[in-house]
Amino acid sequence: MSLANIKDSEVDIVIGVLHSDLTSFMNEWRPIFSRFHLIIVKDPDLKEELRIPEGFNIDVYSKSHIDRVVGSSSSIVFSGYSCRYFGFLVSRKKYIVSIDDDCIPAKDSKGFLIDAVAQHLANLATPATPFFFNTLYDPYREGADFVRGYPFSLRSGVTCALSCGLWLNLADLDAPTQALKPAQRNSRYVDAVMTIPSRAMMPISGINIAFDREAVGPALLPALKLAGEGNLRWETMEDIWSGMCVKVVCDHLGLGVKSGLPYVWRKDRGSAIESLKKEWEGVKLTEEIVPFFQQVRLPQTAATTEDCILEMATTVKQQLGPSDPVFTRAAEAMVEWVKLWKAVGSGSSPL
Amino acid sequence: MSLANIKDSEVDIVIGVLHSDLTSFMNEWRPIFSRFHLIIVKDPDLKEELRIPEGFNIDVYSKSHIDRVVGSSSSIVFSGYSCRYFGFLVSRKKYIVSIDDDCIPAKDSKGFLIDAVAQHLANLATPATPFFFNTLYDPYREGADFVRGYPFSLRSGVTCALSCGLWLNLADLDAPTQALKPAQRNSRYVDAVMTIPSRAMMPISGINIAFDREAVGPALLPALKLAGEGNLRWETMEDIWSGMCVKVVCDHLGLGVKSGLPYVWRKDRGSAIESLKKEWEGVKLTEEIVPFFQQVRLPQTAATTEDCILEMATTVKQQLGPSDPVFTRAAEAMVEWVKLWKAVGSGSSPL
Repeated sequence: MSLANIKDSEVDIVIGVLHSDLTSFMNEWRPIFSRFHLIIVKDPDLKEELRIPEGFNIDVYSKSHIDRVVGSSSSIVFSGYSCRYFGFLVSRKKYIVSIDDDCIPAKDSKGFLIDAVAQHLANLATPATPFFFNTLYDPYREGADFVRGYPFSLRSGVTCALSCGLWLNLADLDAPTQALKPAQRNSRYVDAVMTIPSRAMMPISGINIAFDREAVGPALLPALKLAGEGNLRWETMEDIWSGMCVKVVCDHLGLGVKSGLPYVWRKDRGSAIESLKKEWEGVKLTEEIVPFFQQVRLPQTAATTEDCILEMATTVKQQLGPSDPVFTRAAEAMVEWVKLWKAVGSGSSPL
Repeated sequence: MSLANIKDSEVDIVIGVLHSDLTSFMNEWRPIFSRFHLIIVKDPDLKEELRIPEGFNIDVYSKSHIDRVVGSSSSIVFSGYSCRYFGFLVSRKKYIVSIDDDCIPAKDSKGFLIDAVAQHLANLATPATPFFFNTLYDPYREGADFVRGYPFSLRSGVTCALSCGLWLNLADLDAPTQALKPAQRNSRYVDAVMTIPSRAMMPISGINIAFDREAVGPALLPALKLAGEGNLRWETMEDIWSGMCVKVVCDHLGLGVKSGLPYVWRKDRGSAIESLKKEWEGVKLTEEIVPFFQQVRLPQTAATTEDCILEMATTVKQQLGPSDPVFTRAAEAMVEWVKLWKAVGSGSSPL
């Protein structure tokens, strides 16, 4: 894997923190994280002081920072898992790696610790191939190449803007599935990275991802907030929505999205059955969201990620808004987010 | 893996034979093949008698059978690797597994023999999910499921019509790539099966595939014959062309295509550099073929695979024909193939 293109100084690791004691989490990640600058964003609903071990290069952001930047009148909510997006906003780096605080480094099939950050950066540093599927998986990996019949004109690929990693132990199932299979754990290590083809939609999770902030940062946004949203991953949808936004943007701008390695080890947390008792609107909303994002097309005039998000917000409001006010709020949050991104990203922010 | 749906008696294993001594090949496959009916088609250019060990349920077809069925005036050529298609034509089974005679069973990462036939049938017996990408790979495998955010309305999937396996040792590279990396061997066992998304094109190889003959049989056809075609896989294009035809048909008819497991072990054969010395038109043609198949759309009136192939033949002739006579010949072969399929498949053949 050639990482020649990406320097450590070009990377922020963003961790949205929903639990105050980070001692064990940080110590597990120490061999991997210690070379990088970390942005920790504390869930504004979390009252306790954070406990963070020494020896890291960290900036910590909490409710007071958030209030100072976005004010209290904003339609953007940074509660729960959405706090991570504040980290994306205030980062000044080209690349962001975002990992949830209930994940620790996984081991590969030979028992070696997986450096998830190095793998994400390798995925981003090498091209993606969204216009034709390579059955031999990522052709840029050592020992791999393009399969016979792959057009030579497409072999230089396109910039990879998003790398989506996976999960050992607790796979990212939804609450009904996890409730039906309470003992199911993911132990299959699939040693592959692949480009998701252009125009194919997928559910992107926010648990273990990395992206080119300069290229698609504004598309990773906290827009869809469920009314009964909880603080377990399967009680949220904000990352699924954001993932469809960023995939549509990538397809429109000719950028690539990869899925597969790296794995992280997700620890058990919460009860799926308890989660099901809440009014979980996610399943119902998904049925409307997916066809929408599958058919949405952006105009040629949308030349930047910001343009794309504003165009999509208009269409969301028009097409999805009438069926549920949650979509109108999402559209408003998208517009607000682009404003914020421009204000904070241009350096005019008070931070 | 549930194979409840597919009985051994519903399966033909088709082997196109380019080399006369099948002793070692058949003995290697004996534990896997011996339960099934085999169709062996001898390359009509191969003069020597076949050597086949005892203990199999086999029908062997040779030049005389081919001549009797297609006559000598046909635009269909069954030479070289194309001889396998004769086996697809005369089969009366619902499913076909097709494996090249330079492949032997592979071993998985734990050293166990891989039953490629069982895996192909598992791929075909379980649904495919072409309308939304599941990042957890084949959701129907034991221990796997749909990822959070996958719409429930799409979880029943569609019929899987084609299963494309992969290759350990010698990956299916083209001659230029193999010539550049003469020592490269594929040793990465990726333990995954996935559905190729609808509208995404891929190069399907004929080396290790299985398909639902009743659903898409007529789309697996010997149409594109290179002028300087040799008898090494990288000197041919007939399977790449056929693969794009069948993918377009599957997308149009709402059927699925899977790629990944099973692996077979491909033995070394031939010299890539010698192959490059031939006039190898494949690279150039691919650049025209791929954009064509990416944009071709079939009319709603095309309701069967036969209809689809005839529609495509017309478009091939119109759009690709003017640039190279090889495409006009391919279009003619497609029309001829559908005629043959209807004649032979309807039982009116003299076989």
